[in-house]
Amino acid sequence: MTDEVATRSGEFVQSLERGLAVIRAFDAEHPQLTLSEVARSTGLTRAAARRFLLTLVELGYVHTDGRLFSLRPRILDLGYAYLSSLSLPEVARPHMEALVAQVHESCSVSVLDGDEVVYVARVPTKRIMTVGISVGTRFPAYATSMGRVLLAAAPAGWLDDYLRTAQLRPLTRRTITDPAKLRTTLTRIAAQGYALVDQELEEGLRSLAAPIHGDNGSVIAAVNVSAHASRGSFETIRKELLPPLLATAKRIEEDLGAGSGR
Amino acid sequence: MTDEVATRSGEFVQSLERGLAVIRAFDAEHPQLTLSEVARSTGLTRAAARRFLLTLVELGYVHTDGRLFSLRPRILDLGYAYLSSLSLPEVARPHMEALVAQVHESCSVSVLDGDEVVYVARVPTKRIMTVGISVGTRFPAYATSMGRVLLAAAPAGWLDDYLRTAQLRPLTRRTITDPAKLRTTLTRIAAQGYALVDQELEEGLRSLAAPIHGDNGSVIAAVNVSAHASRGSFETIRKELLPPLLATAKRIEEDLGAGSGR
Repeated sequence: MTDEVATRSGEFVQSLERGLAVIRAFDAEHPQLTLSEVARSTGLTRAAARRFLLTLVELGYVHTDGRLFSLRPRILDLGYAYLSSLSLPEVARPHMEALVAQVHESCSVSVLDGDEVVYVARVPTKRIMTVGISVGTRFPAYATSMGRVLLAAAPAGWLDDYLRTAQLRPLTRRTITDPAKLRTTLTRIAAQGYALVDQELEEGLRSLAAPIHGDNGSVIAAVNVSAHASRGSFETIRKELLPPLLATAKRIEEDLGAGSGR
Repeated sequence: MTDEVATRSGEFVQSLERGLAVIRAFDAEHPQLTLSEVARSTGLTRAAARRFLLTLVELGYVHTDGRLFSLRPRILDLGYAYLSSLSLPEVARPHMEALVAQVHESCSVSVLDGDEVVYVARVPTKRIMTVGISVGTRFPAYATSMGRVLLAAAPAGWLDDYLRTAQLRPLTRRTITDPAKLRTTLTRIAAQGYALVDQELEEGLRSLAAPIHGDNGSVIAAVNVSAHASRGSFETIRKELLPPLLATAKRIEEDLGAGSGR
């Protein structure tokens, strides 16, 4: 990777990397952090962490009471810049809502980012028990139905690299962890046009996904419905949910195509 | 603002400010930008814009085909760091969904950030015509029902400053633009415990909001339902929607309180 080294030494703006690391230090488990905690979790010196935090305070992204620091809602501007630049979530949402109203299961749309799927739209079904998934949630692609649909459509050379290097960890006792078996599964998914994952990401969770194609025929995203195992057998789920899911994917594609002239 | 100048000259990390400005250059109207466009919209030199863009490419936040640049889904990590640090959206969502199922109007939760409200949770109703509002959307506080609930609960000194300096623009012909009249309205809202805004943000849109109180009794957020004017009169909306909205706010407060021990 000579290019990367060259970039790092020459053009790379380390202050930006460090500032973004300070932002990412805050999460659900750490909504409020002291200066020392930010320094520890980012690997920065206290002096450097302090400069980045005070800069973020001044820019309106971080709040402090003098001791504790927390993110402010302005930070949503950054992620929102991405979401609002995608027409996909906006176009997909009404069709996702119609599907959820029909089948009473949650529906999501995600894209591939490296070896993970990232949720860019989600319509949960109305349930007492909800799943902690929202826009921005990431999962390893190999163990999810949407991830498999996206991997199945990836360029051959990229997929070869992925299967050679990916850490296929057993997230449940059913997770496919053998690269050769995963490849066979992806080939079948590409041929049949959908993926059904049976409790490989989490026990009790089955998920069915279909590709969303762009104008040029390439797969740009995946849409899924997930169901608790109590809904019925693998075969019941395919029979009940696959036709409406494929119809939803088709409607999204049509609307995306219709909007491509703008 | 001597402090700010001191900070700027001493500790302020300008590279971080500039890098974040490059991220914000991308939006719905500009999902793909050339180097020149980024330089123009951020006021950076081409050389500086190039360094920031290449840094963001290397960090996985930006994609480029060599000419056009666009944000990658990893950027959601930044905004998501904020959202996942709030327990509010997660706690509120099931109660918002129950309200939407009951009244068939969209429900949102927002917080005050400076002089704007920022949406942190939203459950749209199922409609053909949807409103382009999502998590991260911002509106001027003075013209929205949630903003008025939040302004009505703001500290007196802060509110005085706000009313003296805010630009109260007429967004519709009904928008209150007189600071004295706005103050009277806010006093009434504080006393009655809800705000009803009648087509002041947009013609045809009425919205009803209630405060969400934290453990110490302070107002931490607002929850609203919005309805098209065709739903009925101002009085009909208050009669039909206010009781379920207040009940929803109370349920959210109870759940927030129950979770405060964690």
